Amino acid sequence: MLVSIRPVLSVLGYLYVGLAAAMLVPAFVDVVSRNADWQAFIISALITGLVGMLLIVAMGGALRDGLDTRQTFILTTLCWVSLPAFGALPFLWLGIAYVDAAFEAVSGFTTTGSTVLTGLDSLPPGLLVWRSLMQWMGGVGIVVMAIVLLPFLRVGGMQLFQTESSDQSEKIVSRSIELIRLISMTYLLLTSLCIVLYWFSGMTMFDAFNHGLTTIATGGYSTHDNSFGYFTNPVTGWIAVVFMIVGALPFVLIIQALRGQPLLLWRDPQVRAFLWLVGLISLALTIYLGTSGNADSFGSAILQSAFNVISVVTGTGYAMGDYTSWGAPVIGLAFLLKFVGGCTGSTTGGIKVFRFLVFFGTVIAHMRRMVRPNRVISVSYGNTHLTPELTFSVLAFLVVYIGTVGILTLILSLFHLDLVTAVSAAATSVGNVGPGLGTMIGPAGNFAPLPDPVKWILCAAMLLGRLELFTVLILLDPDFWSK
Amino acid sequence: MLVSIRPVLSVLGYLYVGLAAAMLVPAFVDVVSRNADWQAFIISALITGLVGMLLIVAMGGALRDGLDTRQTFILTTLCWVSLPAFGALPFLWLGIAYVDAAFEAVSGFTTTGSTVLTGLDSLPPGLLVWRSLMQWMGGVGIVVMAIVLLPFLRVGGMQLFQTESSDQSEKIVSRSIELIRLISMTYLLLTSLCIVLYWFSGMTMFDAFNHGLTTIATGGYSTHDNSFGYFTNPVTGWIAVVFMIVGALPFVLIIQALRGQPLLLWRDPQVRAFLWLVGLISLALTIYLGTSGNADSFGSAILQSAFNVISVVTGTGYAMGDYTSWGAPVIGLAFLLKFVGGCTGSTTGGIKVFRFLVFFGTVIAHMRRMVRPNRVISVSYGNTHLTPELTFSVLAFLVVYIGTVGILTLILSLFHLDLVTAVSAAATSVGNVGPGLGTMIGPAGNFAPLPDPVKWILCAAMLLGRLELFTVLILLDPDFWSK
Repeated sequence: MLVSIRPVLSVLGYLYVGLAAAMLVPAFVDVVSRNADWQAFIISALITGLVGMLLIVAMGGALRDGLDTRQTFILTTLCWVSLPAFGALPFLWLGIAYVDAAFEAVSGFTTTGSTVLTGLDSLPPGLLVWRSLMQWMGGVGIVVMAIVLLPFLRVGGMQLFQTESSDQSEKIVSRSIELIRLISMTYLLLTSLCIVLYWFSGMTMFDAFNHGLTTIATGGYSTHDNSFGYFTNPVTGWIAVVFMIVGALPFVLIIQALRGQPLLLWRDPQVRAFLWLVGLISLALTIYLGTSGNADSFGSAILQSAFNVISVVTGTGYAMGDYTSWGAPVIGLAFLLKFVGGCTGSTTGGIKVFRFLVFFGTVIAHMRRMVRPNRVISVSYGNTHLTPELTFSVLAFLVVYIGTVGILTLILSLFHLDLVTAVSAAATSVGNVGPGLGTMIGPAGNFAPLPDPVKWILCAAMLLGRLELFTVLILLDPDFWSK
Repeated sequence: MLVSIRPVLSVLGYLYVGLAAAMLVPAFVDVVSRNADWQAFIISALITGLVGMLLIVAMGGALRDGLDTRQTFILTTLCWVSLPAFGALPFLWLGIAYVDAAFEAVSGFTTTGSTVLTGLDSLPPGLLVWRSLMQWMGGVGIVVMAIVLLPFLRVGGMQLFQTESSDQSEKIVSRSIELIRLISMTYLLLTSLCIVLYWFSGMTMFDAFNHGLTTIATGGYSTHDNSFGYFTNPVTGWIAVVFMIVGALPFVLIIQALRGQPLLLWRDPQVRAFLWLVGLISLALTIYLGTSGNADSFGSAILQSAFNVISVVTGTGYAMGDYTSWGAPVIGLAFLLKFVGGCTGSTTGGIKVFRFLVFFGTVIAHMRRMVRPNRVISVSYGNTHLTPELTFSVLAFLVVYIGTVGILTLILSLFHLDLVTAVSAAATSVGNVGPGLGTMIGPAGNFAPLPDPVKWILCAAMLLGRLELFTVLILLDPDFWSK
């Protein structure tokens, strides 16, 4: 059958109405702070809400039969392409160029955190809240996508994480409502906790609110050009460290931990690997900073190390100081860490830890079979036996991921970006990290000076990474659309 | 059983005797040109030959039962580690530091072509001949390894190229003699042809001899600091282009072409893909050079484009002009092309074209299965159906290859190399290409200023790449050595 997008448009309609409602938050903030910009949000909300309601009415009843595989692929991609398009509307109203508005919205919803806006400290409050809110919504959207949709679509080995809600090919929407509700409640709870703690540590309520939204989403938008360098209290920094880590953990396990089974978290292979990884690298960086004279004290060395390592690995992208000034070893490290990512089912981007674990396990088994071809070696992840189909998914994802970064590097260099800027822009966009490397787009820089076509390309790269590549690539295959 | 390395040492003994014989060539050249350095080669030949003969005598009869899988893995790695060790002896005698001698010999035997020697134009002729000869021997060694050993060892999907000579697990040595003889004769024929043509095009006999040896080996050592920039006749450049391409083709198909079946070459999937690739990229670069004002004429633009593209893709590493001065797009291109490589069963390094073909074929099939899980899709390479085991081998190779470059980049950056130098040194070494990027190790530069530990690390990287990674990595697994 030809694929019908009527039920897809119906779901999008509901999401647009939700997005319109979210736009009332920055409008409210601007009204309270007596800023005329509230109109931009109200008008954008009206447009977005109207389109949403039109879709719901026009597609009435189309959702009756649920979504099949192809419709789910189309929905997932259309969500992440169209929500930023509407999310960019308020920026347009405030006189920001279309390419910059789109970049900022895509970077927001994908929780990348790269920014083209400068002078953040003096921007109207509603605008800052809207940036944070887009990341927060994007964050929960990613968790829902990773837990509910991708395992069902079997993207990049995600079938490893099939739950009761994702193993049925029919009526995925109705069956997943309960899980989505649980995820949302947990997300809201953690965000509130983070906001309160930030506030107690000395942030203003406004900063606490914004950074709470963007920390748990591992997004990285700040209300200050100086990012976390603005906050001098080390306690604030450590709160960020803790909540970036929380944002990088599998949400399903966080929910189970909150329900009284915290040990499940520590028994999870990717959680253990992730914590060991960031722990050891932070320690190594602390020693490096201490011995190379880049830190004032041990306390500041360990905080700056842990903060920046975790910020890059989780793809948050907050900066505490310009770590690229700490020497070539730190630049090399930051470059590699952009690829890592956190745990699957979290708000983080990147390749993600479980894929490395599956890769190492299967490659060692593969080498042993090369030596003794007749030996049968079974590879497991946790308690799950890995099928050849699954390991192939994971390896294909790794190759396509790195290949995408490579091809993007070439494309960006065609716009006369130097190699470091090009390759780091590619890696940071596909990995949804945030800052790149080099003087222009490094942690002390900004994406604003990039040429417009490059900004559009990076928008595509952020979406491609966020959708775990295959969700988009599949749509480019003519075979997808055939009967 | 515990693995016995007695038959391995026996084979090595014969190889050392052969290497000693080869050292007589530069000795002869130095004698003829009345250069006192001939002693260095005679002494080195004596040492090498003596060790070889001792091994043959001491291991007498150990080869009777042939080599099993593990012994073949050990032999392959020990060959490529120990031959450069002996090959470095003449350099030592001439007063070159041990690390530089080792680097030059490893870069020679692996046909990488990175050099730490400067003032090539005024170096003694015997030394220059020895450099070229090491690359030439390395070149034929690689072809033999790729055709006879690796398919049998099933390294990185090479089982796709199993021939009659490689599908038997026992007595691989005796059965392969005929194939090795054929390869060697063809190699000698092509080299002679290349030398004669170079000579006719205006090179001195000495230059023609040296460049003939290093062109067909896609090695890249030159007798001039200025590499092919030294030769102003475009005909010389085009001869190099043709023979670098020949060196990048599968030798088995070249043999069949010479036996009257040239069409087999063109029908081969990797040959077609390779020729299309270098053709299209050369054309694109020609247009870029023409429009960006980097070339004097169309003729020079097309020669410089084809020459440098093919030099990088085949991993030869000759330079015609400093292409890194042609702007960021060319640097980005050169960086990516370092990964490509030529055809399997040729003298080239890198990932190699067939692996990209297998990858694209299987990933498209994989995406289609994601959309329609019940569909059976079979993937072929030429007339061969690809088994899951083979596609897994290829994908694992790709990931391990790029992962190795990534980890090397980090390690090199610990020695305070900037990111461009570090990542290009890693890519150019593992890919056995030759020059890197950046001011220090770029095509106009030299590896001499690198710190000694970095040179050792790059030696390991060149060997790792030459041995297609797994041949070495397998030896690091304790399981390999267990009963």
